[in-house]
Amino acid sequence: MVHSRIDQANQLALDRIGETRVFWRDVSLAEQKIPWLRKYRLLHAGPPLVWNEMCGAMQNAVLGAILFEGWANDLDEARNLAQEIEFDSAHSHQALGPMAGIISPSMPVLILENQAFGHQTFATINEGLGKTLRFGANSPEVINRLHWLRNTLAPMLQQALEFGNPVDISSIVARAVQRGDECHNRNKSATSLLIRRLAPWLVRTSFSREQVAEALLFLDSNDHFFLNLSMAASKATLEGIVGLRDCTLVSCMAGNGVQFAIQVAALGHRWFPVTAPLAQGRYFEGYSVRDANPVMGDSYISEAAGLGGVAMAAAPAITSFVGGTTQDAVGTTLEMYAITAGEHPYYKIPTLNFRGTPLGIDIRKVVDLGITPVINTGIAHHLPGVGQIGAGIFRAPIQCFQDAVQEFQTGTPNATGSYQKEKERET
Amino acid sequence: MVHSRIDQANQLALDRIGETRVFWRDVSLAEQKIPWLRKYRLLHAGPPLVWNEMCGAMQNAVLGAILFEGWANDLDEARNLAQEIEFDSAHSHQALGPMAGIISPSMPVLILENQAFGHQTFATINEGLGKTLRFGANSPEVINRLHWLRNTLAPMLQQALEFGNPVDISSIVARAVQRGDECHNRNKSATSLLIRRLAPWLVRTSFSREQVAEALLFLDSNDHFFLNLSMAASKATLEGIVGLRDCTLVSCMAGNGVQFAIQVAALGHRWFPVTAPLAQGRYFEGYSVRDANPVMGDSYISEAAGLGGVAMAAAPAITSFVGGTTQDAVGTTLEMYAITAGEHPYYKIPTLNFRGTPLGIDIRKVVDLGITPVINTGIAHHLPGVGQIGAGIFRAPIQCFQDAVQEFQTGTPNATGSYQKEKERET
Repeated sequence: MVHSRIDQANQLALDRIGETRVFWRDVSLAEQKIPWLRKYRLLHAGPPLVWNEMCGAMQNAVLGAILFEGWANDLDEARNLAQEIEFDSAHSHQALGPMAGIISPSMPVLILENQAFGHQTFATINEGLGKTLRFGANSPEVINRLHWLRNTLAPMLQQALEFGNPVDISSIVARAVQRGDECHNRNKSATSLLIRRLAPWLVRTSFSREQVAEALLFLDSNDHFFLNLSMAASKATLEGIVGLRDCTLVSCMAGNGVQFAIQVAALGHRWFPVTAPLAQGRYFEGYSVRDANPVMGDSYISEAAGLGGVAMAAAPAITSFVGGTTQDAVGTTLEMYAITAGEHPYYKIPTLNFRGTPLGIDIRKVVDLGITPVINTGIAHHLPGVGQIGAGIFRAPIQCFQDAVQEFQTGTPNATGSYQKEKERET
Repeated sequence: MVHSRIDQANQLALDRIGETRVFWRDVSLAEQKIPWLRKYRLLHAGPPLVWNEMCGAMQNAVLGAILFEGWANDLDEARNLAQEIEFDSAHSHQALGPMAGIISPSMPVLILENQAFGHQTFATINEGLGKTLRFGANSPEVINRLHWLRNTLAPMLQQALEFGNPVDISSIVARAVQRGDECHNRNKSATSLLIRRLAPWLVRTSFSREQVAEALLFLDSNDHFFLNLSMAASKATLEGIVGLRDCTLVSCMAGNGVQFAIQVAALGHRWFPVTAPLAQGRYFEGYSVRDANPVMGDSYISEAAGLGGVAMAAAPAITSFVGGTTQDAVGTTLEMYAITAGEHPYYKIPTLNFRGTPLGIDIRKVVDLGITPVINTGIAHHLPGVGQIGAGIFRAPIQCFQDAVQEFQTGTPNATGSYQKEKERET
């Protein structure tokens, strides 16, 4: 085996990830933690784009956020104002959200911290199932729930964390991966583990008993509550390898409903975007792939951190849901080991005799083998206002990996062209 | 395939089990639901025995129960009184508890009901880990906890169930089996699912917030809290086949620390006892099989209901704990299909592509093949007062199955000798 500088850098990246423990420390309003956010500014999922470029679902989520902030009184006013809104990618501010991923200044965010390297990340609070802003719904019911999240649940969670301790999210993920979750499209066990930890602390807050009971019912009703914490934990983990010289591992993947894009550790926060693909999956009654919006959301960072599609063998119920077998799920994970640099040191899959999940997507291997990461996703309707119509998987398009390899060979001072030199030496 | 009367009866038994949903309906004091229980009477695990026959751990649990009831002021008084106590097998009263399984009149019991056939069963509340009555500890700390269970937790749970709904225990077991539990020696996911269901209801009780918070912390601290519910659910399920003419399926297995015994559906509640074996397993630091008490407890009914050792493939972490592999766990379950009449219709194992757990231990198959059920268990020290020293597995001794087959061939009017006739016709 040739111990190239890249392999050494990638091993160092795996070591850093192995040392990382991410804790949920606090809750705050987004504008208090993200200085860029202020009136008439919004963050969104995936690589940056402006109003006119956005898909319908994201535009509708933007309109909902405008109403939530009180910047407009109705959808018509909101639509006029939207042209004036300044947008940025949430990832540029260590923030993220599933699907449309809209973050407005007074939305509450969960604050996570990578204990080993100090990185903080910020995620929205998951709104639950059914009609939600993240899938492009913006009815009064959706806006009212956002107000409840800001005015009641968020300060209650903040108090609970004060009375309790920071919550070890890495530990919950590790246990959930052994209990049928891949912590991207399936978060049932992780949500359960979180609830039993939070419940006694919530009881000790200053909120009324009925408010606490309602909060606990809300948590129990939403098996994806943990998703946003899992995403932010993956981001906090991978920020620890961003800028690592010679490292060819993917540090971020995300979609904005128009483009899908990746970031590579040694190349910093630069996006490599391609046209967003459609997901294959199971559609709710009356819908098909013809209705689907191209893939969207910041949750695709999960797969870069050893979760989601690459860890499918941990969650065969997802494959079963779309008609596949446990062997299909195992096959997916086994395939992913071919394009990853190693195995996760504490996310372990019982079905594979507690082998670690595939960790560290290496752009070299993706391009050389022509195997691209399998990613789990929810599916939004391409028209505004319909919301979620299914769930499924897609393959990250190979073009963005090819573009990143190209940049690595020819490009930035950080990358130093060492990948090209290695290739020449090895052949 | 010969469709014998036995096979038909066993199929009917499987159908009844498949129709069964067990709900946790209420909490009460044992003496209110079990008429036999009154002053100076105690129930214990496994087949019936008297004070002088009991192992040290069970004797110590008896002394603790006497102190808990206030029938004696100290251990010396309790020991004198113990000679006078009237004992009976808890199973004879549709009641059960893990390990020593002592139930005294004023202990609270959880009330479960088989919705399809109406059978009610009663289980103690799980005391948690560490020093506990069920493992033969009886220190003031243990007795104080029993008082807290009776005076605080039990009435709080009772109120919670009034405010909420009966809890569908069958559904929780089915989900937990898909999340790494076999619901005998591993109840982590099941306990999580129970807590998230109960938490909002507990908040709405009349108990103080601090009492509710303490109750939630107690539940969170005890990953075996669900065990007693699981056991009582298995009992409520299997009561539905007791007395079923020609049925050769095991309807109960239990140990009292001296004897291990089984019951067979067609033979009613008659015990077939043998000398209790020792369990092989992993021992806590400083202990070995030489320190172990022979197997004890009513929880072995789990294996008769498609859980525990027969479902080991669902919980490979248990095998991993004692140094085995996931393949070992799968191998155990695959072997158990050879001695069971069918597969559980809603306890499904992801690793086996969602195949149902082995269900319905057929005494004919056990005897014919010489394969006996694998049973999971905790391990108590053989000396009084030490408590739990490990966890492991054992094989149910074949003698009790041979005795039951013998009785089936020659015995009761209920059995009608049809097994013998079938054997003759087939050979």
